[in-house]
Amino acid sequence: MSSSFGRLFTLTTFGESHGAGIGGIVDGCPSGILLDEAQIQRELDRRRPGSGGLAGTTRRESDTVHLLSGIFEGVTTGTPIAFFIANENQRSKDYSDLAELWRPGHADMGYDKKYGIRDYRGGGRSSGRETAARVAGGAIAQALLATESISISACTVELGGIRASDYGADAPEDAADRPYAAICEEVLPVWDDLVKEIRSAGDTLGGIVRIEARNVPAGLGEPVFDKLDAVLAHALMSVGAVKAVEVGSGMEAARMHGSEHNDAFFPPEKAGEPPRTTTNHAGGILGGISTGGPIILHCAVKPIPSIALPQNSVNRQGEAVTLRVGGRHDICAIPRIVPVLKAMTALTLADMLLRQRRMNAVPEGRA
Amino acid sequence: MSSSFGRLFTLTTFGESHGAGIGGIVDGCPSGILLDEAQIQRELDRRRPGSGGLAGTTRRESDTVHLLSGIFEGVTTGTPIAFFIANENQRSKDYSDLAELWRPGHADMGYDKKYGIRDYRGGGRSSGRETAARVAGGAIAQALLATESISISACTVELGGIRASDYGADAPEDAADRPYAAICEEVLPVWDDLVKEIRSAGDTLGGIVRIEARNVPAGLGEPVFDKLDAVLAHALMSVGAVKAVEVGSGMEAARMHGSEHNDAFFPPEKAGEPPRTTTNHAGGILGGISTGGPIILHCAVKPIPSIALPQNSVNRQGEAVTLRVGGRHDICAIPRIVPVLKAMTALTLADMLLRQRRMNAVPEGRA
Amino acid sequence: MSSSFGRLFTLTTFGESHGAGIGGIVDGCPSGILLDEAQIQRELDRRRPGSGGLAGTTRRESDTVHLLSGIFEGVTTGTPIAFFIANENQRSKDYSDLAELWRPGHADMGYDKKYGIRDYRGGGRSSGRETAARVAGGAIAQALLATESISISACTVELGGIRASDYGADAPEDAADRPYAAICEEVLPVWDDLVKEIRSAGDTLGGIVRIEARNVPAGLGEPVFDKLDAVLAHALMSVGAVKAVEVGSGMEAARMHGSEHNDAFFPPEKAGEPPRTTTNHAGGILGGISTGGPIILHCAVKPIPSIALPQNSVNRQGEAVTLRVGGRHDICAIPRIVPVLKAMTALTLADMLLRQRRMNAVPEGRA
Amino acid sequence: MSSSFGRLFTLTTFGESHGAGIGGIVDGCPSGILLDEAQIQRELDRRRPGSGGLAGTTRRESDTVHLLSGIFEGVTTGTPIAFFIANENQRSKDYSDLAELWRPGHADMGYDKKYGIRDYRGGGRSSGRETAARVAGGAIAQALLATESISISACTVELGGIRASDYGADAPEDAADRPYAAICEEVLPVWDDLVKEIRSAGDTLGGIVRIEARNVPAGLGEPVFDKLDAVLAHALMSVGAVKAVEVGSGMEAARMHGSEHNDAFFPPEKAGEPPRTTTNHAGGILGGISTGGPIILHCAVKPIPSIALPQNSVNRQGEAVTLRVGGRHDICAIPRIVPVLKAMTALTLADMLLRQRRMNAVPEGRA
Repeated sequence: MSSSFGRLFTLTTFGESHGAGIGGIVDGCPSGILLDEAQIQRELDRRRPGSGGLAGTTRRESDTVHLLSGIFEGVTTGTPIAFFIANENQRSKDYSDLAELWRPGHADMGYDKKYGIRDYRGGGRSSGRETAARVAGGAIAQALLATESISISACTVELGGIRASDYGADAPEDAADRPYAAICEEVLPVWDDLVKEIRSAGDTLGGIVRIEARNVPAGLGEPVFDKLDAVLAHALMSVGAVKAVEVGSGMEAARMHGSEHNDAFFPPEKAGEPPRTTTNHAGGILGGISTGGPIILHCAVKPIPSIALPQNSVNRQGEAVTLRVGGRHDICAIPRIVPVLKAMTALTLADMLLRQRRMNAVPEGRA
Repeated sequence: MSSSFGRLFTLTTFGESHGAGIGGIVDGCPSGILLDEAQIQRELDRRRPGSGGLAGTTRRESDTVHLLSGIFEGVTTGTPIAFFIANENQRSKDYSDLAELWRPGHADMGYDKKYGIRDYRGGGRSSGRETAARVAGGAIAQALLATESISISACTVELGGIRASDYGADAPEDAADRPYAAICEEVLPVWDDLVKEIRSAGDTLGGIVRIEARNVPAGLGEPVFDKLDAVLAHALMSVGAVKAVEVGSGMEAARMHGSEHNDAFFPPEKAGEPPRTTTNHAGGILGGISTGGPIILHCAVKPIPSIALPQNSVNRQGEAVTLRVGGRHDICAIPRIVPVLKAMTALTLADMLLRQRRMNAVPEGRA
Repeated sequence: MSSSFGRLFTLTTFGESHGAGIGGIVDGCPSGILLDEAQIQRELDRRRPGSGGLAGTTRRESDTVHLLSGIFEGVTTGTPIAFFIANENQRSKDYSDLAELWRPGHADMGYDKKYGIRDYRGGGRSSGRETAARVAGGAIAQALLATESISISACTVELGGIRASDYGADAPEDAADRPYAAICEEVLPVWDDLVKEIRSAGDTLGGIVRIEARNVPAGLGEPVFDKLDAVLAHALMSVGAVKAVEVGSGMEAARMHGSEHNDAFFPPEKAGEPPRTTTNHAGGILGGISTGGPIILHCAVKPIPSIALPQNSVNRQGEAVTLRVGGRHDICAIPRIVPVLKAMTALTLADMLLRQRRMNAVPEGRA
Repeated sequence: MSSSFGRLFTLTTFGESHGAGIGGIVDGCPSGILLDEAQIQRELDRRRPGSGGLAGTTRRESDTVHLLSGIFEGVTTGTPIAFFIANENQRSKDYSDLAELWRPGHADMGYDKKYGIRDYRGGGRSSGRETAARVAGGAIAQALLATESISISACTVELGGIRASDYGADAPEDAADRPYAAICEEVLPVWDDLVKEIRSAGDTLGGIVRIEARNVPAGLGEPVFDKLDAVLAHALMSVGAVKAVEVGSGMEAARMHGSEHNDAFFPPEKAGEPPRTTTNHAGGILGGISTGGPIILHCAVKPIPSIALPQNSVNRQGEAVTLRVGGRHDICAIPRIVPVLKAMTALTLADMLLRQRRMNAVPEGRA
């Protein structure tokens, strides 16, 4: 099922940027979880066009979510939770000249090769709009995770090559309320200047997002193919524009010695808890299984491919054309991609939590 | 199913390093593919202990594969292909003192938290030995891919922070026959010196592996959650020791402008073929769908956690201990990990090839 | 995923009888299939309350389907096809006294035991209303099957123990237009009399439905667990009220000799076609794989459990109560169940068709 | 995955009747379950050729099972449990003349149409020998179910049209030790006479098997597509020779009134338990969810298609031939099919038990 994610806590999505709307079904959510539309709407509002400060677009949609099933008297019933977000602001005329063109950096050509037909209005399923359904599904996952006190945060640590840590100390806890979801306050004017410069040049930017999950119990993840980090990599890399995923020390792990990279174990503060560590090169995952420590992930986000500068391209007949993308586009997928990456992390952890529950639930004293 | 990979071309594996042996079942391989044990054995021999030159261990096993089903008169029948590799050289006494300890950098603690029981002899399913079953399954996948002329290569581009490209020009085509599966000849003495130095220090090393798939048709991959790069990231990150996966430009994409990162399209040499590009920052995948160009991936491999130096750790009761890992261990997972990463890439592409076949097979002229 | 059916052609449904509405997502439908809302509406109209003649209810809803995604310029794009059917006529007051009761023959008690919470208004997911989403999904499956000229029909062969074949010759081709979807015209007055009598007695009836699929190519179905008949049995038994599924000779097979039951093979009329048979005890499936002949299935439908007569029951506290179900209910699930069974057969065959396509698509002359 | 059964407790099988052997992998079995080869061997011995009394074949194999992984110190570790049963007694010469023929009632033709190639020695995957792997997997499932005190029995209630209940009272508890796994002692001489008569006529017989599962907790099964009875029907119909599956009242439900069919609820003996019933027309399942009462299933088993009498058939070229099956064959799939049906029931219940565990495990007081 190409449009579903998860084995036990499953999100199936649908919708294009220029149809009736987008939506999804969360199946497998346990009963008894408090859930209302406001919780989902709060996450969606962070992904909304225009929320990104200088880097955002002018396309504005309210992105109002409607729950269609699975809730009764304010709690989940254990049955499928469907939701829908209507499309409001569709300007098909902006896109209709793209029917015969393949844009560099976009999925246009691949869709034509895959399906032989393509909804050329705004990218169809490859549109960033598809991610609103992920954010809604992720909000439901977070409601489940909250029952176990698991929390997830995400923030931007680098934009266009400028690292936030060169300008201020990490303060990820307030990132969601800052422009760019920046990890610190001090870097904001520097990034603003860069964005203005790039915008006037008709170009676009990329960046790096950091995701952290706290209070994840030790023992989540499967030993072989569905290692926790493998499924997280799948989840994050499935977001368009992500070109790399790092767990813990990431690429840098390749340059460390074993004696540096190993996170030494120290006795826990309370008996029965996982051991303490003073470093976290593992990123909270060893052998594919959570250690109980914070899970740390980084994603590289590529620059948005829709640039105002002229580009060499071809049409569906394979003939050379010069392409100049009109319309008003985002300069950077950051920060709108940040709640999407958070949502994918939540969906993964919710699924892995349920997968683990089946394993350790042999009634004690019976086996 | 935690021990299965793939939706249509599926590998399910079993076995521990200190049981009867390891093996697996490939289900969903089409009928009529030429396949014999020699093809599989050839890939297994590249993963065998001792094949790694200076970085390898002295544990030697023949790792002889036996096909148990699914082949008739030299070709696949379309039914499950099972294989088995017996364990030969088990020295349980080397490991028995680890029953009560949790080794830093290893999965020991996670297994105890997950299952409440752990086969402490050599790591159980978290042992590197498990990967032999992946290599065997990957060889079967490669037999299928060969019917479409798809080929995969893998080589080492960096070891312990020393980049091969600083010493010689890329020559990946011969990498499989070089020590370390190195991408060039010239770096070999430099890496040898580094390995000797690290071994005498009782420490270990990591590195970076590059995987390339050629002749992959345009159109593989699913638009949303099962993007081709997402499933490849899942596949590669599921190999123990991998801490990061990059597609195309990878982490560097975060620092490029859109005008740099977009691979401009030029008319193909033959009508109907995908457009040509002179760059490949996309790594052969756009919007999660293959473009027809070479697929380029990089994996960061962490240093092996079993080091000879003393380490702080705890036992199952959470009490502090000083751990010194005995036995003879590899200095680096490279190059033995190289055929494993190649196998996981092959398994992913075989599955995606079959997934695509169902989509485009509406008889022409009927729809 | 408890609310999904199919591996490659997948239907995921949602919705309760007393929420916003019901709907679903079909994922995996190939691109290029002609599809519009009218095709789906036509099937839905056959399932609509009031369509059943004397046996039906007076609850009337238009059951208007809206396609939300996956169609562009009148054909499928290969992306998920979502649809929604709003609930219109909800009389919650009819049901609110059932919150604390468990009705015999209903799922009430099981839901409470399973989830600890239950949407008691009209049965939640166990409501017959859920089947409208199956009918819509099945209509999409039939659009795919039509590209291969595969057709499915369903009709009623027995009602309340009265067999149609005792009154007239089989004429299944016109069944969809007859009351009760009856297999012949002559039995109609007899069934009408029976229904009137049972209704006045405050009781309900069951019956037997026959499903036939024609022009199914030989070779569909998997050899072991996903035999074609096994998946069909799963599909049909998943419809509430079905208590038995028969393939071909069904229960009667247990009383036949091998020499009677074997369908002898005779040369086909055209070379390359499957052999002809003059009998069809196999029901078009041998060893779990379609033979190319008509697939014949029968389902036993139990009487509707909501009866007007008083019944012994218990409440959620386990205390004895006397239950008398109010409201106006159907006397028999037939004929409204008939298009549902047809839809489930279509969903199964569409999935099996795509599953087979991946297997036989090794390019000729390459293997 | 065509050779896998189950979502969380999964059995994947491999092997043909004339290859190295058959086997399988059980994945998803929780850790801490007591399991040894003897438990599995006991079930296998009941399926062994020659165990069937007069109805059995003379092909004798020890069918010795070997556990290859997943067990440590006598208990399951939570990792995949693989097993292998070597083929011993292969007389390929008995079958080689069938390479070019399609036998009526067999899967030969379907395999050729499906795969274009067929292992004609003994039927390949369609051989009854494949079911030994199901019995082994089922024995592991029963070990899990035993931790919840769930037990399953199966027995023969009808053979060649002769019903046991016409000759003696039901005594299913001892059926496993009787010839034909008969439900009573008194019918044995009658069935023996029938078998002798049919054997001398060169013909074969079918029959009906009854399966009962006790102590299944209320709440197993999913509301829509994976109703407990739907998955059980899938499981049982996936056994070759089964042509019908009945739940509870089965086909007879179609002829009952609602007032007869509803099982009235009475207060339970202990508070918190499911209500009592004095009838069980539901067969222990309502709305697809277990009620806590005994689960009752019946399967119709068709006569074995390999008969000694001459039959009309065709060869692969479609030319008419007269077929006379040589070799010594069983007269009836009963009783060897009985432990297979029991195993499939166990596999289904084990999977459904784990599927339910994930749902009800929200820590109390947190939601």
